[in-house]
Amino acid sequence: MYDCIIVGAGVAGVSAAVNLKIRKKQFLILGSREFSTKVRKAHHIQNYVGMPELSGMELSNALSDHLSAMEIEITENRVNSIMSSGNGFFLSAGSEVFETKTVILATGVEFSKKIEGEDAFLGRGVSYCATCDGNFYRGKCIAVAGSGSEAETELHFLAELAEKVYYLPLYQTSEDFRPAANVEVLSDRPKALSGADRVETLTLNSGKELKIDGMFFLKDALAPSTLLPGLNDDGMHIVTDRQMRTNLPGCFACGDCTGRPYQYMKAAGEGNVAAHSVLEYLAGLEKAQKA
Amino acid sequence: MYDCIIVGAGVAGVSAAVNLKIRKKQFLILGSREFSTKVRKAHHIQNYVGMPELSGMELSNALSDHLSAMEIEITENRVNSIMSSGNGFFLSAGSEVFETKTVILATGVEFSKKIEGEDAFLGRGVSYCATCDGNFYRGKCIAVAGSGSEAETELHFLAELAEKVYYLPLYQTSEDFRPAANVEVLSDRPKALSGADRVETLTLNSGKELKIDGMFFLKDALAPSTLLPGLNDDGMHIVTDRQMRTNLPGCFACGDCTGRPYQYMKAAGEGNVAAHSVLEYLAGLEKAQKA
Repeated sequence: MYDCIIVGAGVAGVSAAVNLKIRKKQFLILGSREFSTKVRKAHHIQNYVGMPELSGMELSNALSDHLSAMEIEITENRVNSIMSSGNGFFLSAGSEVFETKTVILATGVEFSKKIEGEDAFLGRGVSYCATCDGNFYRGKCIAVAGSGSEAETELHFLAELAEKVYYLPLYQTSEDFRPAANVEVLSDRPKALSGADRVETLTLNSGKELKIDGMFFLKDALAPSTLLPGLNDDGMHIVTDRQMRTNLPGCFACGDCTGRPYQYMKAAGEGNVAAHSVLEYLAGLEKAQKA
Repeated sequence: MYDCIIVGAGVAGVSAAVNLKIRKKQFLILGSREFSTKVRKAHHIQNYVGMPELSGMELSNALSDHLSAMEIEITENRVNSIMSSGNGFFLSAGSEVFETKTVILATGVEFSKKIEGEDAFLGRGVSYCATCDGNFYRGKCIAVAGSGSEAETELHFLAELAEKVYYLPLYQTSEDFRPAANVEVLSDRPKALSGADRVETLTLNSGKELKIDGMFFLKDALAPSTLLPGLNDDGMHIVTDRQMRTNLPGCFACGDCTGRPYQYMKAAGEGNVAAHSVLEYLAGLEKAQKA
């Protein structure tokens, strides 16, 4: 049982982690050791107070150095789903399930739009998690849209189960990319899903139609309300108060996923506040247990 | 007419200033070039993300370097009062009056408590501003409580006007401190003010009573609601929303003055957000003028 699991290892997640470490809490920070692609690609940051004239790569290295200095390790598991456990949360990530008293969502902003039919067929042919749902598609025909090269491991896993896989990479694949023989790679984009009870057809941007049994969207990050049902959002962002509390007790959020401005400095500040709110919440739990 | 005046030059104020400078706004930042005493005295900061293991002096120097790199100058005027001007604010600081479209309050937290009678006799013998009210006490007897050595310039000015001055330094005076001949320095603290219509008596912690015509409290920073009447506070902090807007249009706040946790990282983040809200507000004003 962890005190806290931080979902996301951008500036906000790292800021939260640093504070929990100082206060000697048992926590995990889940995300990419490369930090967010957004951070690394930033050209020129002038408003990170105390560090004038910074490149994205320099900020990324500074985050990395700070974590090393404090002996914090990032766990590179992609989170599939989170659910209430009564007195905390179960968090499914990669092929593991963790239990934690609190969660800090620092997932950034998912800019990729959903396609027509994606929400309607969720759980009826649409899946975001190869590990969770792959077994349902043994010997069947599926399509897989991958947001980045991280999706390729899951593609490989799905290709071992399904008979036929259409792969739609929504990124530039590298020269080393060698999909299995039953994987057909298409340079096209998913546009709409249709069917009667379940997904039957995927229409692509080109107009081409694929007959499929299931559709996997392997995104860098899931929309928070998909990750954790019941979470209040305003359509685009998680709703929090000034203490970075969400509507779910024990669940906090920080950084771009809570709204504009999308700024590193704001993310760092909110990560700090979220961690302090977690500390206060944990102290409350402890008090209640003693009473 | 300034686009914005930032009151306070701690981490929050500097963060706001950096963003307004990038966006080429006309602004002033009022405060001490030494930054806050609190920042300089911090021993060991571990949670300023990107800069592990920092002393207060190092953070203070980093702020200073960032301002220099962006050619931002701190104006060392102590703010006396702020009032609405209809389409903005008048701000009285030192012996000058500025006009500005927006204000960002980044005043920190005033930890010194008010004494008994301080609020009741405000404007009837109690003053926070030597420049504003000194002339009323020509040839009279006054007491002056100074929160820090910055108060000594104002003490000097008051001693030239008043016949007799009791000085209560609430800090360790330096060896160089040489008050004028009509200044009696007391190692005691103010406890209560009393009188009929106006202040007549100051009672000290020791029980000693001083007959006075006026009492000056020369604090590092004024309580925000004293500075700007009508501003919503919760008794201790300025109330803001997630965009750092106060209840007064055009007036924003950030940093410790908006509440806990009192953290540099939070202050830096909120300064960033406040500046972005100012930009949005100014854009709104411009649009309204064109329409």
